[in-house]
Amino acid sequence: MPHPLDRILNPRTLAVVGASNDPEKRGYRAIKTLITDGYEGKIIPINPKASAILGFKCYASLEAVPDEIDLALVCTPARLAPDVVRSCGKKGVQGALLLAGGFSEASEEGRILEEKTVAIAREYGVRLIGPNTNGLFSARLNCNAIAWFNIPRGPLALLGSSGNVILSILIEAQIHKYMGISTMLSVGNQCDIMFHEYLECLGSDAGTEVIILYIEGFKDARAFLSAARKITPSKPVVMYLSGRSAEGKRAARSHSGSLAGDYAVGSGALRQAGVVLVTQSDHMYPAAEALALVPPMRGRRVAVISEGGGVITVAAEALAARGLELAQLTPETQAKIHAIVPAASAISNPVDHGGGTDPRAEYYGLVAKAVLEDPNIDALMFVGFFGGYALRYGESVAATENAVCVELGEMMRKYRKPIMVQSHYAHFRTNALDILRRAGVPFQRHIEIAAQCLASIADYHESRRRMTTATPAPAPVAAVSALIAKVRASGRSALLETEAREVLAAAGVPVPRSVLLRKPEDAAAAVKALGGGALALKVVSQDVLHKSDAGGVRLDVTGEQAVRDAAAGILQAVKTHTADACVDGVLAAPMAPKGVELIVGVARDPQYGQVIMFGLGGVFVEAIKDVVFRAVPVSRADAEEMLDEIKFKVMLDGVRGLPAVDKPAIVDLLVKISALAAAHPEITEIDLNPVIAHGDGYTIADARMIIRQS
Amino acid sequence: MPHPLDRILNPRTLAVVGASNDPEKRGYRAIKTLITDGYEGKIIPINPKASAILGFKCYASLEAVPDEIDLALVCTPARLAPDVVRSCGKKGVQGALLLAGGFSEASEEGRILEEKTVAIAREYGVRLIGPNTNGLFSARLNCNAIAWFNIPRGPLALLGSSGNVILSILIEAQIHKYMGISTMLSVGNQCDIMFHEYLECLGSDAGTEVIILYIEGFKDARAFLSAARKITPSKPVVMYLSGRSAEGKRAARSHSGSLAGDYAVGSGALRQAGVVLVTQSDHMYPAAEALALVPPMRGRRVAVISEGGGVITVAAEALAARGLELAQLTPETQAKIHAIVPAASAISNPVDHGGGTDPRAEYYGLVAKAVLEDPNIDALMFVGFFGGYALRYGESVAATENAVCVELGEMMRKYRKPIMVQSHYAHFRTNALDILRRAGVPFQRHIEIAAQCLASIADYHESRRRMTTATPAPAPVAAVSALIAKVRASGRSALLETEAREVLAAAGVPVPRSVLLRKPEDAAAAVKALGGGALALKVVSQDVLHKSDAGGVRLDVTGEQAVRDAAAGILQAVKTHTADACVDGVLAAPMAPKGVELIVGVARDPQYGQVIMFGLGGVFVEAIKDVVFRAVPVSRADAEEMLDEIKFKVMLDGVRGLPAVDKPAIVDLLVKISALAAAHPEITEIDLNPVIAHGDGYTIADARMIIRQS
Repeated sequence: MPHPLDRILNPRTLAVVGASNDPEKRGYRAIKTLITDGYEGKIIPINPKASAILGFKCYASLEAVPDEIDLALVCTPARLAPDVVRSCGKKGVQGALLLAGGFSEASEEGRILEEKTVAIAREYGVRLIGPNTNGLFSARLNCNAIAWFNIPRGPLALLGSSGNVILSILIEAQIHKYMGISTMLSVGNQCDIMFHEYLECLGSDAGTEVIILYIEGFKDARAFLSAARKITPSKPVVMYLSGRSAEGKRAARSHSGSLAGDYAVGSGALRQAGVVLVTQSDHMYPAAEALALVPPMRGRRVAVISEGGGVITVAAEALAARGLELAQLTPETQAKIHAIVPAASAISNPVDHGGGTDPRAEYYGLVAKAVLEDPNIDALMFVGFFGGYALRYGESVAATENAVCVELGEMMRKYRKPIMVQSHYAHFRTNALDILRRAGVPFQRHIEIAAQCLASIADYHESRRRMTTATPAPAPVAAVSALIAKVRASGRSALLETEAREVLAAAGVPVPRSVLLRKPEDAAAAVKALGGGALALKVVSQDVLHKSDAGGVRLDVTGEQAVRDAAAGILQAVKTHTADACVDGVLAAPMAPKGVELIVGVARDPQYGQVIMFGLGGVFVEAIKDVVFRAVPVSRADAEEMLDEIKFKVMLDGVRGLPAVDKPAIVDLLVKISALAAAHPEITEIDLNPVIAHGDGYTIADARMIIRQS
Repeated sequence: MPHPLDRILNPRTLAVVGASNDPEKRGYRAIKTLITDGYEGKIIPINPKASAILGFKCYASLEAVPDEIDLALVCTPARLAPDVVRSCGKKGVQGALLLAGGFSEASEEGRILEEKTVAIAREYGVRLIGPNTNGLFSARLNCNAIAWFNIPRGPLALLGSSGNVILSILIEAQIHKYMGISTMLSVGNQCDIMFHEYLECLGSDAGTEVIILYIEGFKDARAFLSAARKITPSKPVVMYLSGRSAEGKRAARSHSGSLAGDYAVGSGALRQAGVVLVTQSDHMYPAAEALALVPPMRGRRVAVISEGGGVITVAAEALAARGLELAQLTPETQAKIHAIVPAASAISNPVDHGGGTDPRAEYYGLVAKAVLEDPNIDALMFVGFFGGYALRYGESVAATENAVCVELGEMMRKYRKPIMVQSHYAHFRTNALDILRRAGVPFQRHIEIAAQCLASIADYHESRRRMTTATPAPAPVAAVSALIAKVRASGRSALLETEAREVLAAAGVPVPRSVLLRKPEDAAAAVKALGGGALALKVVSQDVLHKSDAGGVRLDVTGEQAVRDAAAGILQAVKTHTADACVDGVLAAPMAPKGVELIVGVARDPQYGQVIMFGLGGVFVEAIKDVVFRAVPVSRADAEEMLDEIKFKVMLDGVRGLPAVDKPAIVDLLVKISALAAAHPEITEIDLNPVIAHGDGYTIADARMIIRQS
């Protein structure tokens, strides 16, 4: 069954509201473009003052049209929008595309106008595209309702917060000439239909193989994540998300009024949902095209082949910078290459089969076959002059070069490994490269862009593999619910540390032994119960949020008398700091063994909802911000990826006398905290900092939780 | 006076050794190419078996030629090189370019052949280019001795470790069609002439305005730094240096046999010498072209102008990612823009002067003028569709757009601020863009590359400003020389900490007070002398290198008895660890106040020579490697840049209760340590770790020095 928006994005009947016989008007040009591009649906001009426009019968109003209407292309000014949408509703039009600006993006007055228009649309069940957009193109029925010509048709959908950026990608497609567009749309103000619905519709569109998104801000990021999770396993989504810098956020706000979210949060959650993120505008089209062409990539191990050096060095740097590996070829493969080109300059990877004086295009095919058969290799990249041999060395090598191009396509399908060709001749559009591309092999002009394409392909298939493990919806824990109810009843939102520990324990998280000292005499029992070693003492009080600042923490306290004195000291200090603090007592727990300080947290992001954070704790958190985020809930695979994604993950592997962290235990902690938060969304904040990670397990040295009242 | 290599790189007479009448042979094609490209010098074929080649009189040997010969282009096989070079010597040929491979890059046999050839060249004073190169192009006399056609002439020199990479940049110039090449050369094995000499020669070449270098490894990096320092203040040098990753280093080694140096060291030293480093191969040509065109950039503040949004967001992200600032325009400028385009969507920066429905190319010129007059702005960037207005909106806007293009060139010269245009139409080569480029304004297709060009321009002019302060050559300090002599006399290379402190003090570096305890009774006097506070105690022994491992360190020791006990404990532990250790005593010094742990070091890099390191100390050093390098000696400006260049420089500004570091004091320390190392090159290693930085000054908590036993 087609998606509900499918009819709107691929209309069989299209009414042009504000159609005109004046060639300067959008209401004329829109119809002209539809005709020129061979629109296969029915065009219905609406204008009370004309009887026919460009040969089509013109109606005075939508209501006067006898046919069903899928989409109304509204060319009239903003102020008429409520009336037009009401007419759409009365007529039963499926959707209306509002071109005009002057709504919420422009002024408070415009915002009110937009709200009013949306209210009417909702009343009648009319779906709205825009306002403040430059139109729509969809290839299925050749519906070109956008002010642009010569749009190449193909399997890429373009969707974005900016008509200009979408058009700039289209220009790339026009220059590249190979892979064209299925649907193209700038979402405008998203007053009704938002990114996630478009995404869902394109996800189920048979004519779309890869979706390119340029996003300055979501209106419903949670819904987008959910849509992405459904679609990305079968259809790649390539996204440029703005907001990486304060400057970018400010520009996005001034452009589209979008509130770009926290990039660290967004990029984590989107990647988790299978979205392929790129950070350069010139990577969107190449990455999408490559994803549409090549078979899955099983790992990150790439082989580089060239005739002649230099470029292999640049390729190696570019691949390494993107987290791809130049795995050593097996001795068998190296022997095969040596047999093919005895004088080859390098045969282990990168392969430089130069060394003779004559150009030998046939080596590329023979060496590629040997390399693709190598089990150490997940993808193949050519760099240098291949694709331009005939141009460079004369027509005598053309036949061989062309034959290799055809073979590469066959090999890519046979061995099911991606091939990417970088050719210095890409801009010359040689015959060989045309043949190569027709054989299904992507090529690029620049080494760095070719490397980026392979990185995006690897990212996508990594996500797909990770997403095969479903995350079960976690069930609430009765003890946790009860405790939250109790805290709520007391009117508090911050849990006491003793309560936070109870919650953690109920969620199956190991918490260190502890004893609450309520009176001086408890010291002896506490010391005994906690094994006699050094203790950490902390005040427990609903009125003391920052315990250290209030003098409420003492560390490394050993022995009964010292514990008794320290506890008394804490109570005294707290009293001095907050005279009327209600104090439950002093919590004593063994000092954690030395380890790596980590942080695990849960927060409610204004855009992406409940997210879990993992990273390095202590001074690292503040100065270095080496933390990563995922939307809740996370799978084990998600959690493993989080550990692998922090910048200084080397800290987890044992540096400077610190233990190598027990990663499975930390992964387990993340999964449990995520499940706790997911099952109990009334917990709005969890802050475990530091979690001291050991070679065997971990110690949660401090735990804070905040719940929502009511 | 021209550089000694000038005649060799721009030969007036060129002998082709191994000239041939066989069109398949390089010795034929070389002459053919010279003729085709209109070589203005004299061609002299050498071949004992021919009397004339391609119409030129052929000589049996170099010695038989009556004319003076500037360059011999040697097309014969490797094994004949010694004989050919000897002939060159006997004839008094200035230089010989050895095309053949099969020398040191290929085998041990080849290395010996290369050494022999070089020895003969030295004997006769013949300079050698290559071997293992693909030839030379120089525009001055149209000397095309490289296997490539249609080389556009212009002010860019291309020099590199790889003929292929050099050719790939040439292809960019051919595609771009604007700025061509003055000299083009792949240096091959650098058996005689190395990068620094070519650089010096190009530095003094009036036909070269910017030099592009692709470098896989230096043979004399110190000499290169020295040449770069001389040339970069008047001529920009843009470099891609390989070796950023292990993979890149490996590929470079397999390609050119080059040992890529440590990238962190190299990039620091090269930047200090004024070199503009880029890390993508597709940035070399655009950055060089832009540097050749635009006036100096006084700071890093860029204004972005567009008609329509989206692209301004991408531009803001791209600029911010490269350390450029989008400074706010002054209220006056904003008022001017508002007066020009009352409906503008954004006027503070980025400027989006879209808002109306009609394209208005004239706004670009008017807004650009207002922005260039703004004192907050150092450079201007256009993004979007400008340059393609006539193509997009029709010929009616062509005259206006073209006029703006001319005006932009005039404004750039008038206001002396760089202008960079990014146009989605750059690949369509519109008339407007042709006019723009002829007006001297660079343009690019991609936003990120345009942003990178501005970053490279800013980098270059920052370097120039920094390099105006000369670093005086430091003089040796008598007390230091005496101490080093004493240590040498004792046969040691590692200084005792007491000696290292003496050296520091003699170099004018404040060292903390300390007392050497030689016997238990010294404790009382030490405690008194050091103020009675907590002390750090360390063993002083030439036989204990790793003091902590030997139990030779005790921290936070307070009071006479405790000091006495701790000192005894240290001596006992050291004796247990190293039975026959010769111990001078125990050094007592006050515990350093809390602060930020830094590291300052000097080392002898195998490629770049004496370098100074600065960075974060403690656990940061090992896990995060947040350190930067410069060649010794450093100026104050260099040192200031070092502080600014570490990744987590935020740690210097006071985080988490740590003090904001006294930066002038640290800069002073770096300059003094650098001067010490420069004046006393026999000190091969200095390791001050940690230097504990305070709000006021610093404490050197540990000092190690190593000297060379000459």
